[in-house]
Parts: sequence; C-alpha cells; structure tokens
Amino acid sequence: MFSLFSVDDHIIESAGVWVDRVPQKLKDRVPHVVEADGRQIWVWEGGQETTMGLNAVAGRPYETWGAEPVRFDEMRKGCYDPHERAKDLISNGILASVSFPTLPGFAGRKFETFADKELAVTCVRAWNDYMIDEWCAAKPDVFVPMHIAPVWDVALAVAETERMIDRGSKALCWMEDPSNLGLPGYHTEYWYPLFELCEAAGLPICMHIGGASAQVSLAGTIPMVEIAAAFAGAARSSVSMMVSPVPRKFPGIKLVWSEGGIGWITAALERADRQWLRHQGWTHIPDAHIMPSEVARRNMWFCMIEEPVGLKYRHDFAMDRILWESDYPHADTPFPNTQQACTDLFAGVPQDEIDAITYRNAEELFGFTINKSLLPG
Amino acid sequence: MFSLFSVDDHIIESAGVWVDRVPQKLKDRVPHVVEADGRQIWVWEGGQETTMGLNAVAGRPYETWGAEPVRFDEMRKGCYDPHERAKDLISNGILASVSFPTLPGFAGRKFETFADKELAVTCVRAWNDYMIDEWCAAKPDVFVPMHIAPVWDVALAVAETERMIDRGSKALCWMEDPSNLGLPGYHTEYWYPLFELCEAAGLPICMHIGGASAQVSLAGTIPMVEIAAAFAGAARSSVSMMVSPVPRKFPGIKLVWSEGGIGWITAALERADRQWLRHQGWTHIPDAHIMPSEVARRNMWFCMIEEPVGLKYRHDFAMDRILWESDYPHADTPFPNTQQACTDLFAGVPQDEIDAITYRNAEELFGFTINKSLLPG
Repeated sequence: MFSLFSVDDHIIESAGVWVDRVPQKLKDRVPHVVEADGRQIWVWEGGQETTMGLNAVAGRPYETWGAEPVRFDEMRKGCYDPHERAKDLISNGILASVSFPTLPGFAGRKFETFADKELAVTCVRAWNDYMIDEWCAAKPDVFVPMHIAPVWDVALAVAETERMIDRGSKALCWMEDPSNLGLPGYHTEYWYPLFELCEAAGLPICMHIGGASAQVSLAGTIPMVEIAAAFAGAARSSVSMMVSPVPRKFPGIKLVWSEGGIGWITAALERADRQWLRHQGWTHIPDAHIMPSEVARRNMWFCMIEEPVGLKYRHDFAMDRILWESDYPHADTPFPNTQQACTDLFAGVPQDEIDAITYRNAEELFGFTINKSLLPG
Repeated sequence: MFSLFSVDDHIIESAGVWVDRVPQKLKDRVPHVVEADGRQIWVWEGGQETTMGLNAVAGRPYETWGAEPVRFDEMRKGCYDPHERAKDLISNGILASVSFPTLPGFAGRKFETFADKELAVTCVRAWNDYMIDEWCAAKPDVFVPMHIAPVWDVALAVAETERMIDRGSKALCWMEDPSNLGLPGYHTEYWYPLFELCEAAGLPICMHIGGASAQVSLAGTIPMVEIAAAFAGAARSSVSMMVSPVPRKFPGIKLVWSEGGIGWITAALERADRQWLRHQGWTHIPDAHIMPSEVARRNMWFCMIEEPVGLKYRHDFAMDRILWESDYPHADTPFPNTQQACTDLFAGVPQDEIDAITYRNAEELFGFTINKSLLPG
C-alpha cells in the first residue's frame, strides 16, 4: 500500500468557522451561513456567495458534477468535518494533508476586498485559529497546519505569520503573483520582510493555481479553458519568480507551486536559461550568475496528482523537487480510488523514487513525519 | 548542410511601405518616418513609435542588445531590405521564410486602434500589397507570402483574405486569442466565416506569441518575464482552442502557434484530455468525442528554434506537427550561426526526422517547395 503525503487538499469551511470566534457584535458582519429558498448562502458585510458544487465532488460520479450551489447536507461529510476527512484520507492511504481555504480564496485574498480592514484581519485570524484549534486538532498526526495572512499589507502579513509560527503553522498559503491582483509584485522589494521571515523560519510558501488569477471564480469565463489551461498560470508565475531578485536575495526561500503540474517544467527551465543568457546584459538582472534553472532546483517544488507524462520526464527536472497531491474534495482527486490511481501511475518506477515523490520530499519540506501505523488493514 | 524552411521571421518595415501606396492626401496620415533629434520615428494619425533595437539584433553580439530605438542605418540591411534578407537567409541555408509584420503588430492589431477605420483598412491593404509586390517579389522562391487582415470586423477580414488568396497569399497572420484584446474570442461563433474561408482554401493561420497579449510592447512590464515566460501564452491559447468548438466545427482548419516552443505540449495534452473526460458532462461541450489531443495532432502545428528538451520529447507529441523557425532578425535567431546551431541541435536525430522538422512539414503545410539549388557552395 502506498503511504501518501498530500500537499494539496481543500477545506470546505463549516458554518461556524468565523461566528464561533468573534464577539456577538461582529457575528452579522463576518462570513456566516443563512438559509434562503432552500439554499445555504455565505453572507458577510459587503458580499455573499454559495458553495459551488464543483468544490465538493469527492466520491461523486462525474455525471453528477456541476458548478451549481450545494447545501452542506448534500456534500460528503469529509468536505467540512475534519474527523470524517481524516477517516476518508486514511482509508485511501493518505497519512498527511496540507489543506487550502475555500471561502477566503487561496491566500485569503477575499478579505482584501473588505471595506473594513480591521474586520478583514479579524477574519484572517479566525480562519487561522480554526485551522489550528479545530481542523488540525481533530487529527494532529495527519493534518499539517498552514495559515493565511493579510495580502494587502506586508507588515500585517509578517505579524500574522509570526503569530502563526508560534501557533505551530508549517506553511504560509500565499499568492503566485500579486501583481495580477493590482498588488505589489515579486519584482519589487515590497514583500521582502515577509520572505525574510519565511526564509529564517524555514517556512514553505504554498501558492495554488488560481490564487492570483484575475478571475476569482469560473463565473464569466469558459470553465473548460480555466480548468484545462490552468498550468499556464503556474508556468508564467514560477518563471517570473525564477528571473526575479527574490530567490537571489533569499537563497533559502522555499516556494511550492500547487496543482500546476510538472510535465512542462523542463521545457520552461530550458527556455528561461537560454533567454537569461541572451538578455541579462540589457535587462540588468542582479546576481545574474545564478541561472533560472538553478533557482528552480534549489528553491522550488512542483506538484502532481496523476501525470504520467510529467513522471516520465522526472529525471530531466529533479527527483527531490516533486510532490504528490490528492486535491480532496476537488475535481482532480482520485478519491476514493487513490491507491489504484497510484498503482497505475507509478508502475515501473523504482521504490525509492516512489517514496520520494509520495511522501519523503514533503516530509522534509514541511518538517512533518507521516505515521505509517495509521495505514488501514 | 541543412536545408531550412523558417516559418517565423520578421520584417522590419522600410520607410516607404505605406507612403508609396496611398494617394498624396493620405501620406501624412498613414505610418511614415520623420527625423527628430537624430532619431527616426514612425508617425501616423493618432500615434507614433520608434523601432525598438531588440527587434533588429541579427548578427550583433549580445552585449550590444537593448530596447532603445535604432535608426535604419544602424540596422543590418537584411532587417528591412528583402534583397539583403534573401542573401542573409540563403547564406545560412534558409531556403524559405514566412515573415511577420513589426510596426502593425502581429496580425496587424495596431490598425484596430485607429479612430478612422477606413484609413485602417487602407493601411492593412498597403502592408499586404507591399508583402506581395516588394518583399516576396524580391525573391519569390524564398519568401512565402503571408497577409494580415482587419482584426476588428470579420466581414472585412474575410474580404481582405479573399483578395489576398487571389494575390497568392499562403497564410493568414492572426491572433492567438482575440478575447485578450476585448474582441470576440474563439468560444463564440463570430469568426466562423473567416475560419470557413481558411478551411476551404487550405490556408494556415499563423499566430505568433504576443500577438494577442494584453501588452503590445515590453514597456511597463518586466522584460525578462515577458521573454522567458512567453510560452505560457501560447500554452493557454492553444489549449483554449483545443477545447473550443472551432476545430470541431472546422475539422480541416490549420493552426500554427509561432515561437511558443514545443517541450510543454505533451504535458498540456495530457492535462487537457484528463480534464475533458472529467468535466465534459457539466460544461456541455459539443462534439465531445473529439479529444483535445486529437485536435492538437490533427489541426495544430507547433514551432521550435533551438529547443533540445522539446526535441527529446518529439515522439510523445507528433513528428509531423513540429516546424522549425529562424526568428531573423529578432533576439532568438541563431543567425549568422544557423548551420552550427542546427548541427548541435539535431545531433543523433535520424535524417528523415530532421528533414520533417526542418522543411518537409512546412512544405506540405504552406504548399511551398524549397529550392535546394539555392544552397550556397
């Protein structure tokens, strides 16, 4: 049986995440669930949203998928209940799991849209406390704590990251490219204090595809394009980082590109290096002796769910920089057939390479050891 | 010696392209060159622009490259003079060449910004007539005629394409994704009449990277990012087309993605097919039995200058869908060392595969046969 460390799963927040953690006077202003016309709707000061069915498809046949709203009682319990989640994961051999937020958006970017930024910080902190006190507490030897931070202010992001390191966070959930959101990008010095802290703490920075796309949701776009071409965003963002001053200023920084796939990387590195050599003279890049491909193999990790092509090319990239994802309960998850999917995917791959991709690289990166005694049967 | 068919070179327009072809009263309104402070500037009704040095680096050492403006007399003559261009190409074994516009932008998109759309159509036609009457006429057995068309109106685009097919055009220079420019995209029926014409005429549609990016130039962006990550735009655009109704409605359409590279394609096809199978139910795609990878291998061609990684993975894609580019006189060109670059690149590749990539696939696609007797010495 495969022992798996999933570096990319998704929490569907339960109704109490925010209201259970704020004073009475704020309960109507933070995200809370109301019933209307038989639906459950998330409502907060200035906005509302339903939970999209596509975010909660684990265990459901393809024919029943859709972007329509779903109620909590229509979802599999493992979507929002950490006890049930842990059972589901362990039943599939997944012994460690890093989970991303849903309602807050990746990196918690939705709170940046709040007019009242004090309320926004309160919401960020509440989600983070939920992550530690309820989600991870339900099964601490499986759930790897990751926190979000205020994306609109580096000083606030540093303060919240310091608080969460003290609370045991093992990773920062962050944006691939804030310049896509009109925030300072990674070719400015704006985020240096945050990167300095993460480097010093050895904290991996996890950036999920779509976390800094112009579009927050699939509404208004062609869903199949966004889904099928999503790797192009990770490709552009990671290459942008490879040629930025950030990894040259912070040589110990750890950057994880979640759900972007791995098969395109070797081509990306070759192009980046070739252009670097041609254009470094007039583009005046600092520390130009450090090649983009060197940055990628030193500072970056890339992730895969089921990607036979990427796996075939693994030695052209780097065996110690590839991580495995489950994506539970999103549309890419092989759950409940995770073990069979891995059997098919890793056929013919030597055991030490399987171990590296399925859990050892992640164990080292997150400083979190899997407990194999949890394996069923 | 390698016999080469370059499907991607660039014309730096000479001063007379437009003024030589319009009535006296329009000469101050169409693009024309004026001298100011020792520089030469393109000026037209509503705009002006210098020729960027980076667009004319053929034969110059990397240390001298830059984005600063250059005068015609500072450029190698082959940039703008078709007789000199033909000599340069042939000296490097390049026996056929498809060339893209510079001042008009790829696909001639700059004319869409003209307030006077009649003037804009005049400018499109003048560039096309220049292509046939001066550029290709200088060496008809080397230069493959390609035309631009009005990108703001499908009926005008059809009319100009019909006119240019009659004039001998072998390809349409078009946009990867007009929706990036605020124009109707390829998930609408708007462009069907143009695609219907191109399919019926067997006319390849060549779409250069950057041709429908939000940014027209490198100004205001981080140049190294735009250069190194440019393939991500081709990746997104081509996947968008693979999952669009267009190639299913027009099964004979021929789509060429220029300068986007090839090494990322197998990963892109695998992801597109996997997502297609998972999401086709709720996204309601017509003709869903035709897989994205089938579209790619039937309707698409991808291009490479020097890409050892992409070449290594060639059999995972399709030997008959890979084309070679020279990119003269842009920054990616191996000129004047094209033969040596090809010797290095194709080491160990069987001769029939070299021939397919370097000229046979292009001969068949463009209906244009190279004349090997032109090869030097």
